[in-house]
Amino acid sequence: MGVGKFFGIGTGPGDSDLLTIKGQKVLQEIDCLYTPEPKKGTKSLALSIVSPYVREDLVVKQRHFPMVKDWSVKEQAWDAIANEILEEVKAGKKVGFITLGDPMVYSTYSYLLNRLKDQIETETIPGISSFCQMSNSLQIPLVMDDESYAVVPSTASDELISQALTDFSTIVIMKAAPHLEKIMALLTKENLLDQAVLISNASMENEVVTKGLSELDPSQKISYYSTIIVYKTQESFKERV
Amino acid sequence: MGVGKFFGIGTGPGDSDLLTIKGQKVLQEIDCLYTPEPKKGTKSLALSIVSPYVREDLVVKQRHFPMVKDWSVKEQAWDAIANEILEEVKAGKKVGFITLGDPMVYSTYSYLLNRLKDQIETETIPGISSFCQMSNSLQIPLVMDDESYAVVPSTASDELISQALTDFSTIVIMKAAPHLEKIMALLTKENLLDQAVLISNASMENEVVTKGLSELDPSQKISYYSTIIVYKTQESFKERV
Repeated sequence: MGVGKFFGIGTGPGDSDLLTIKGQKVLQEIDCLYTPEPKKGTKSLALSIVSPYVREDLVVKQRHFPMVKDWSVKEQAWDAIANEILEEVKAGKKVGFITLGDPMVYSTYSYLLNRLKDQIETETIPGISSFCQMSNSLQIPLVMDDESYAVVPSTASDELISQALTDFSTIVIMKAAPHLEKIMALLTKENLLDQAVLISNASMENEVVTKGLSELDPSQKISYYSTIIVYKTQESFKERV
Repeated sequence: MGVGKFFGIGTGPGDSDLLTIKGQKVLQEIDCLYTPEPKKGTKSLALSIVSPYVREDLVVKQRHFPMVKDWSVKEQAWDAIANEILEEVKAGKKVGFITLGDPMVYSTYSYLLNRLKDQIETETIPGISSFCQMSNSLQIPLVMDDESYAVVPSTASDELISQALTDFSTIVIMKAAPHLEKIMALLTKENLLDQAVLISNASMENEVVTKGLSELDPSQKISYYSTIIVYKTQESFKERV
């Protein structure tokens, strides 16, 4: 048995072919793959994304990451999973962990990595972020020339979101679902509803795209995987060239 | 001959294997590939990145995109290249265009696409942005939990850069080379030199990483492909878990 190593792999947003070639090669090379299971008993979305590129005989270990407000409950789960991985890598195994989108953008993977990176060899393979795939699919630039963009979660303060909507050319609001009413109120105040696009389940079979949010009911229930992109300069860009 | 189509493909930042599987498949499928040539007579960097995944018999057309301040000169070049592509696609060919990083982030490709997308079928394949690869390589999260990040070019106003350095957890400063002195002065003012990382030629053979910029000479000449990432919460993140 060779030298063990831990690999984090970003799966991209949903389309299996948005995995990188490097991610594909690592999936072929590892002895064992850990996957996150957001709700107990449900199939890992990250696993279904990479499944066309997973060897049939690969050992897959689905582990539950509790999505609760109590940090000590989460930390206990991360400690336990990190210890399991640590033992396997120390025994000489190549162990992978897959995470939706990019591993360095709002991923619980960072907490696992933080527990492991000083003790064993680790490598992290980037992935396409959902909002990046969305801009490519819509074929609207995130930024051009001297423009800037900001990425904020819907849980950020009203002040920060308003400031971002004022200062930046493009504003990405991640995890939009739990605070849709607040976000729509802020967009209304800044007169930006028409320049906003809501995308749910990006690049998946059940993708829904809503361009311009004036008609959207703020109390509507939307998918957990929902992002809003506000393209303030889209019209001027169209005319510019 | 089938129905023509135009594909934009993000190559990622430098490592050939950071191309997506989708990008690889499109490269196998196209009849002809256009590549940007920043300086006349130099080899396209985007082309060298994807070369392991390009068919030997693929027709490659390197085209010069003038990097000048005069917009009319640039527009003339874009018009000419767009017309060439338009004719090929209308004749039934599948035509590709490769661009460094992601096609929707500071890419001249957007200007080509804007000239073509209402006239022919087009599809754009995302790529890994350089700063995203850098964070994965450094294994430092761009954002966690309720944090936000901003992406600004070094050509942005001092006010916007200072505001971003104040408001956001992580700040990415793209195209750092031409304004290194200005950026370092702003970082010094905000007392953030120690939390900044400078990366030149990310994921390429000649990659250089400088962690903490206190010792850096602001008048130093650095690579055109240089990015600064300011991780304001990195220390608190390390302690957090």
